[in-house]
Amino acid sequence: MESLKVAFLGPVASFSHQAAAEYFGTSATLLPHVSFGDAFAAVQGEAADYAIIPCENSTNGSVVQTLDLLIDREYRYTDVRVVAEYYLTVHHCLLARKGAFPSYRRGETRIAKLYTHPQAWGQCEIFLEKYCKGVERQDVSSTSKAGEIVAKETGEQSAAIASRFAAEHHGLDVLEENIEDKADNTTRFLILRNANSKGALFPGEDNTKNATSTTLRSLFTFMVPQEAPGTLADALLIFKEHGMNMTSINTRPSQQKPWKYVFLVECDMTSTDQSQRAVADILNGLRQVTEQCKYLGTWANQLTRS
Amino acid sequence: MESLKVAFLGPVASFSHQAAAEYFGTSATLLPHVSFGDAFAAVQGEAADYAIIPCENSTNGSVVQTLDLLIDREYRYTDVRVVAEYYLTVHHCLLARKGAFPSYRRGETRIAKLYTHPQAWGQCEIFLEKYCKGVERQDVSSTSKAGEIVAKETGEQSAAIASRFAAEHHGLDVLEENIEDKADNTTRFLILRNANSKGALFPGEDNTKNATSTTLRSLFTFMVPQEAPGTLADALLIFKEHGMNMTSINTRPSQQKPWKYVFLVECDMTSTDQSQRAVADILNGLRQVTEQCKYLGTWANQLTRS
Repeated sequence: MESLKVAFLGPVASFSHQAAAEYFGTSATLLPHVSFGDAFAAVQGEAADYAIIPCENSTNGSVVQTLDLLIDREYRYTDVRVVAEYYLTVHHCLLARKGAFPSYRRGETRIAKLYTHPQAWGQCEIFLEKYCKGVERQDVSSTSKAGEIVAKETGEQSAAIASRFAAEHHGLDVLEENIEDKADNTTRFLILRNANSKGALFPGEDNTKNATSTTLRSLFTFMVPQEAPGTLADALLIFKEHGMNMTSINTRPSQQKPWKYVFLVECDMTSTDQSQRAVADILNGLRQVTEQCKYLGTWANQLTRS
Repeated sequence: MESLKVAFLGPVASFSHQAAAEYFGTSATLLPHVSFGDAFAAVQGEAADYAIIPCENSTNGSVVQTLDLLIDREYRYTDVRVVAEYYLTVHHCLLARKGAFPSYRRGETRIAKLYTHPQAWGQCEIFLEKYCKGVERQDVSSTSKAGEIVAKETGEQSAAIASRFAAEHHGLDVLEENIEDKADNTTRFLILRNANSKGALFPGEDNTKNATSTTLRSLFTFMVPQEAPGTLADALLIFKEHGMNMTSINTRPSQQKPWKYVFLVECDMTSTDQSQRAVADILNGLRQVTEQCKYLGTWANQLTRS
């Protein structure tokens, strides 16, 4: 069997790369893409079997670029569907070139310079304040890039803040592990597939048809006509009427006209024989009160999975 | 009478400064603040009478820093209320040092270098592609800063993309006006005030008590208990039951626990004697099904104002 091709947001050794490697395993061919749009296009054009895309972080919230690509205002990715989700807990390590600090001791060994992505400084404040106070900091475009830089530096006694995955990729020593302030900082990834793809879903079974204890999550988008007050409430009521539990609602600009919005609604339902019917009924209901409603897929909710 | 003190997000001549100047006029003392949080703190601590804060752009959507400050997870800004809104249409100009291009002609005059904020390049793509193709570009931290740089440069034949307001502030020539691709790119600002402030609202009257044709907009936030499916739908139904038309719903992380959310709901209602009663009834209803619900204010919707 030919190996699966999976698009992820590069560079190599990024958190998206790590999520792709953990979810699809070593037999898949993981393809870095420079933008979210490129990864969507790879699935739409069937250059990749799947894409794995960050959609939400437990601390920072939604990734709006991903929401906008899912909304797909210009009908570029009409066949892209969400088929699964994957949760990756973000752990940061203090990394250095192999052998650079042979007798490293926390808070005693002098590090000349630190490299990481701007967001990571904020995520490791407590550790940095305690053990790396006053050390020069250099912002770089990704934590993976930080790892790459210290791997190549031979003169300076520098260190990077990045993942263990990046350490393995760049051949670095792990001086410290789990230096993040919040142990539960997690990113949710969506796994995308072309609706026209044939064959069984990876990992070899359609997990939406599994045990009845599974909660299924579905995603819908729609616009509300501006001249019809009360429509948003009417649209949201439809989910309730069909036994769906709304878990999140996001509002994005329609970009058709200022202050007209597209809504993205995620909802959960216990898996039963009626689940597929409920999706069809909701779509029918939405068509009557909203504009351009779309169904973007159903997948097993990994948080409630037994 | 002492002049009003108004906090805005700096630097001087920013779009926030322009919004503050247009809304409050020349008699107010406009105070630049380096962060959104500082402007909220100025209102909470009564160092400023008002703050004016961008909350949403018609193209890019919500400003999440503002949403997070309104949510106020750590009870720092408990007295901050929204009392008004102001819409500023974003127009960009091509600006140069006074006298630098005495006989400027579109597409013919050679400009050596352009300065602006990264977002502005994307907002002026059509003009730049047509008339400034191949000109060297330099990113700076704000459009106002770009204006400041070209005002000081004496050797180079450079230009900045910034507002007419920045041109006036930095004493620049306006070579071109309205070079933005989208003529209707608008930012909505919220005007904040301390709930304990005494005296009449600027501009001298409480516009929520005006003509009956005014639409009033209110803002509420609440959290939904995770173990109670259907609660979000129940909470949103409360708005409908009390005659409020929901216009936007935003979901932000609670930061209490991953995947638990805070919802921000904006809703409109025609101004009547019952409006204030409706707010109280909604709050009562929300208290029964949600957690930590808050009412953040009511103000005249400027889009529907007669």
